[in-house]
Amino acid sequence: MSELLGVAVLGAGHMGADHIRRLDQVVSGARVVAVADPDTDRAKDAAAGIDGVTVHAEAEAAVEAPGVEAVLIASPGPAHEAALLAAFERGLPVLCEKPMVPDPAGALRVVEAEARLGRRLAQVGFMRRYDAGYLRLKSVLDAGTLGRTLMLHCVHRNAASPSFFTSEMLVEDSVAHEIDAARWLLGEELTAVTVLRPRPSAQAPEGLVDPQFVVFETSGGALVDVEVFVNCRSGYQVRCEAVGEHGSARIGDDQGPLLTVSGAAATEVPQDYVVRFADAYDREVRAWVDATRRGRVTGPSVWDGYAASAVAEAGVRSLRGGGRVAVELAARPELYAGATG
Amino acid sequence: MSELLGVAVLGAGHMGADHIRRLDQVVSGARVVAVADPDTDRAKDAAAGIDGVTVHAEAEAAVEAPGVEAVLIASPGPAHEAALLAAFERGLPVLCEKPMVPDPAGALRVVEAEARLGRRLAQVGFMRRYDAGYLRLKSVLDAGTLGRTLMLHCVHRNAASPSFFTSEMLVEDSVAHEIDAARWLLGEELTAVTVLRPRPSAQAPEGLVDPQFVVFETSGGALVDVEVFVNCRSGYQVRCEAVGEHGSARIGDDQGPLLTVSGAAATEVPQDYVVRFADAYDREVRAWVDATRRGRVTGPSVWDGYAASAVAEAGVRSLRGGGRVAVELAARPELYAGATG
Amino acid sequence: MSELLGVAVLGAGHMGADHIRRLDQVVSGARVVAVADPDTDRAKDAAAGIDGVTVHAEAEAAVEAPGVEAVLIASPGPAHEAALLAAFERGLPVLCEKPMVPDPAGALRVVEAEARLGRRLAQVGFMRRYDAGYLRLKSVLDAGTLGRTLMLHCVHRNAASPSFFTSEMLVEDSVAHEIDAARWLLGEELTAVTVLRPRPSAQAPEGLVDPQFVVFETSGGALVDVEVFVNCRSGYQVRCEAVGEHGSARIGDDQGPLLTVSGAAATEVPQDYVVRFADAYDREVRAWVDATRRGRVTGPSVWDGYAASAVAEAGVRSLRGGGRVAVELAARPELYAGATG
Amino acid sequence: MSELLGVAVLGAGHMGADHIRRLDQVVSGARVVAVADPDTDRAKDAAAGIDGVTVHAEAEAAVEAPGVEAVLIASPGPAHEAALLAAFERGLPVLCEKPMVPDPAGALRVVEAEARLGRRLAQVGFMRRYDAGYLRLKSVLDAGTLGRTLMLHCVHRNAASPSFFTSEMLVEDSVAHEIDAARWLLGEELTAVTVLRPRPSAQAPEGLVDPQFVVFETSGGALVDVEVFVNCRSGYQVRCEAVGEHGSARIGDDQGPLLTVSGAAATEVPQDYVVRFADAYDREVRAWVDATRRGRVTGPSVWDGYAASAVAEAGVRSLRGGGRVAVELAARPELYAGATG
Repeated sequence: MSELLGVAVLGAGHMGADHIRRLDQVVSGARVVAVADPDTDRAKDAAAGIDGVTVHAEAEAAVEAPGVEAVLIASPGPAHEAALLAAFERGLPVLCEKPMVPDPAGALRVVEAEARLGRRLAQVGFMRRYDAGYLRLKSVLDAGTLGRTLMLHCVHRNAASPSFFTSEMLVEDSVAHEIDAARWLLGEELTAVTVLRPRPSAQAPEGLVDPQFVVFETSGGALVDVEVFVNCRSGYQVRCEAVGEHGSARIGDDQGPLLTVSGAAATEVPQDYVVRFADAYDREVRAWVDATRRGRVTGPSVWDGYAASAVAEAGVRSLRGGGRVAVELAARPELYAGATG
Repeated sequence: MSELLGVAVLGAGHMGADHIRRLDQVVSGARVVAVADPDTDRAKDAAAGIDGVTVHAEAEAAVEAPGVEAVLIASPGPAHEAALLAAFERGLPVLCEKPMVPDPAGALRVVEAEARLGRRLAQVGFMRRYDAGYLRLKSVLDAGTLGRTLMLHCVHRNAASPSFFTSEMLVEDSVAHEIDAARWLLGEELTAVTVLRPRPSAQAPEGLVDPQFVVFETSGGALVDVEVFVNCRSGYQVRCEAVGEHGSARIGDDQGPLLTVSGAAATEVPQDYVVRFADAYDREVRAWVDATRRGRVTGPSVWDGYAASAVAEAGVRSLRGGGRVAVELAARPELYAGATG
Repeated sequence: MSELLGVAVLGAGHMGADHIRRLDQVVSGARVVAVADPDTDRAKDAAAGIDGVTVHAEAEAAVEAPGVEAVLIASPGPAHEAALLAAFERGLPVLCEKPMVPDPAGALRVVEAEARLGRRLAQVGFMRRYDAGYLRLKSVLDAGTLGRTLMLHCVHRNAASPSFFTSEMLVEDSVAHEIDAARWLLGEELTAVTVLRPRPSAQAPEGLVDPQFVVFETSGGALVDVEVFVNCRSGYQVRCEAVGEHGSARIGDDQGPLLTVSGAAATEVPQDYVVRFADAYDREVRAWVDATRRGRVTGPSVWDGYAASAVAEAGVRSLRGGGRVAVELAARPELYAGATG
Repeated sequence: MSELLGVAVLGAGHMGADHIRRLDQVVSGARVVAVADPDTDRAKDAAAGIDGVTVHAEAEAAVEAPGVEAVLIASPGPAHEAALLAAFERGLPVLCEKPMVPDPAGALRVVEAEARLGRRLAQVGFMRRYDAGYLRLKSVLDAGTLGRTLMLHCVHRNAASPSFFTSEMLVEDSVAHEIDAARWLLGEELTAVTVLRPRPSAQAPEGLVDPQFVVFETSGGALVDVEVFVNCRSGYQVRCEAVGEHGSARIGDDQGPLLTVSGAAATEVPQDYVVRFADAYDREVRAWVDATRRGRVTGPSVWDGYAASAVAEAGVRSLRGGGRVAVELAARPELYAGATG
């Protein structure tokens, strides 16, 4: 295992550039050998200082570059399907940022393509599964200390949303994380969704339905509620409380030094998911590189990516039309049996 | 003000006996002059050691006993309407335990009777309005620090329910507290309710719908969600988080000494509302005695008692039939104008 | 017990006026019948609106006024000895604010006077023994959960000191509370004291030795350290952590609503001991009135008052001269046997 | 920078084996090329599965092995001086575990040897400087939010001590971490130390002076107190509170999920420093590898290692003889000017 894994990174935007830095400087065992971005200047900037890397405008060219043994997809969502299928064709392991494929039909095609291969190649980038807090919550639930889990209460807040953010994106982009986390924590599928609309905040852009309150039902009868609020002003906050038959467990309140100044005892609330989940991204990519070098595929599967898309799409229908919307999932291929989330 | 206020206490059960002890030993300015309970032995026990007190089987007799200047009603709910009307007839100030009158029609008759008097005589026993935590949350909301409140997330858990507890009582008895607290904190009426049913806990008695997850909508468009779980095993827990346009505020996590023993840093969770709200009951009764001696009536009104009954009754219909149920409120008499909750 | 206990209050300053209000309005079972203060206008103001109260310039006159059955001493420390002896002569129960008697010799004379009576009449106003947090810590220690207590770490901070505050007063006035609390919590005498001087805060008045760090040794070999800092700026803070053989317990961090605003999750730090210990004062005076009406004397004794003076005086010598100073205590009269603190 | 840094690891015990694993699997940019341990079987086990690594009985042989560009010293403390001097002779960068050199005289020889070279080669393994909590506390102090720091209150507890642990090792091994952390946080030297002995815990081995309470004075007049308790039973706890002129900051209470079960709301206390400081070790070694590959030397210097030895040695004298012991430091070479801790 002393050889470094050669990785092609597709997409050199904010997230792609961050992954390039991570593969180059943080994660052991990998090196970036090719970078693709339609904006080749951006790709060159992101690849600067890395020995032997090649830069490409086309994703396909990067995937075919010499030395590429694995692919990290960080391009915009609509480009993911083609990139995944290209990697599958060449038998290359993939780490694909979320949303895997935004529309459920496309996501299902990816599932079917991998299922035809008969073995897993892709891991989807739900990085919360690698966050120390979520990992400990998961281990509490799996240990059975709380008995069966009956409810999850979730909070997902951003200080402010970017200008292009739409009401639908609160479900598709933000709640997508809770969708996967809930499936993973509970080991159950989400079967229905209801999006409720509290009065909108005057601090949110005109017309944006923000906050939203989303209620999921699971295949086992549990309830998952999510407050999503992307213009909450106070900072980035992700909390989750699991309520079981014997007790409850909560993560997301622990934020470092307690400062007592000017009449208040306070801990800092980060302004950004980059701060909050920095370690989770590192752990995710390290786990992917380690597993890939050992010839294994672990972590969230394309089935998880597909399920998240299908649930989010039902959520958007509920947001638009109101009321409870049932989630329709295709039959699960044998390859993904035995594991939900 | 050196004279002690003479109080007739109706009902000498668990709550009545506790109020008798409180008036006799804790609260300044009052003395118990009459106690009524159909079980006169129980009444005698509760009144033991109090100078000059008389004991009665009939509520009416106690209300008419010499020296009675005010009435505290702690008899079972179905007896409240008659007791309230009797006090109104005599012009006596009343503190009435909740539920004021269980059925909305009866509650409305009480509202109309007091409205006909043209002045308030009754205070309803929603003691959370006197809890230090709720008072501080209320003052945070009123100060405007958080901007407009958009959501309340509430948790109401009991370790275990008594054997006679029904699924309806989770709404009528338990959530009744959150109904009043939400109206009071927000200064808005609750206009619709949806009761959701997570899978029931195996720790709850067979057939009891426990936990429940209740979502209220308010006249101003806010959303109030309540987890009510009366067999949660771990202890008595009441939490409330208000989410506003500029930030959030949460009460209910602070529980005294932090013990670090055997691999855990822990605070105690009380097993009982008596422990959690002991100070609130004291403060409530003290405020009532103080105001009464000054000839004033403050605190939750019979309109609040009526509104709580009407909302709870809509909640029970949602629990039974499923789906969202709108709350129907009568026109609010002039006497209660200007104050919601 | 339906008669109200007639109390003479000596001293109508900040603390005396507060106790008059408390006896009149908060505590059941008592009424103020006489008030004494050299400044009779101040005494009249404090007594305004109370039926049948008399106002006096001289403490003796108030103690002898008709209807006086008990005495509450809230005059300046130097007047306490005479007032206590006067009450002892008349066999009246007393609640005496701390410091009981500032100089150990005078305090010892009070001990000897009460010991000659052969029964307790006086309770000293160490109100922390009535604080909910301290009571719970005491019950944790007494329950044996932590094993034998080896250390207490204490913090005592004020936002800012009054202009007349001297370096000696940090020990005599502020640490005096920790001296009594430590004796009470541990059930041991303090046998030696070392006052250390960190560099003074630039926020403290020129010349004031602030903060100080005080280390006590106990008769059982435990160590008690106290940070006292009376110009800490951030607010009033009292914390205590007991470290035992099996674990530790800490009080003083729990302060109500958690506000999340502007990048911080914060709880309020009160600016004042009046806010922090309001309930403790109420509980203390209520307990004194209740016990007195039942003919009993409980709570901190004059021996506790004497011991606190003797330890504080040793602390002042350490502050002035540096180094460790042993505490010299007189022999303990039989009357106070079996109870330390 | 695409070449991997070739590292010789000296010592294949618990800590050495952990560093070998870390360099091989966690840290990017490095590979283990030589391992030395007198117990060559242990060395082979630790090196198993690493391509091209050589195993040696002698430290010197490993340092001279082909491909060695840097040295990590994890052998027992008495072997450190020779290993450091050997690395200095060959101009190799070094990461040396603490204690750098246990006796101050030997530590000073290392300082002088590096000073003669005229450039830094060695970093000492005080990993707390790389812990997320300490880093944030340091940044709070450096930002000036609290004004000048006047006191540090530290707690250092282990669940139980190993059988070979002596009373001196509480100072030399455990408090050594606080010695460095205090120098680093405050940017001042420790000038005197007093070791106090609370009564020993019955849970500690017979004869072990445990707990101890250590008070340091600094060159700037600040006070640093440390409770060290290596048989505290409840778990591994490291806390630090800095008290400044405007407020205070505390780290060490945040430990993950809040579990509410069986009447308690609890967070886990780890049993081990490996769990508590796992991330700090990773961050430390990564920083060392990154800096070394860039030809730089950062982090704690051999002067820091020497100062820690000198302060600990004074502490041991205080423990043995009692009383306050002044710390004697040699003149600081020019090479280490401008930076304390």
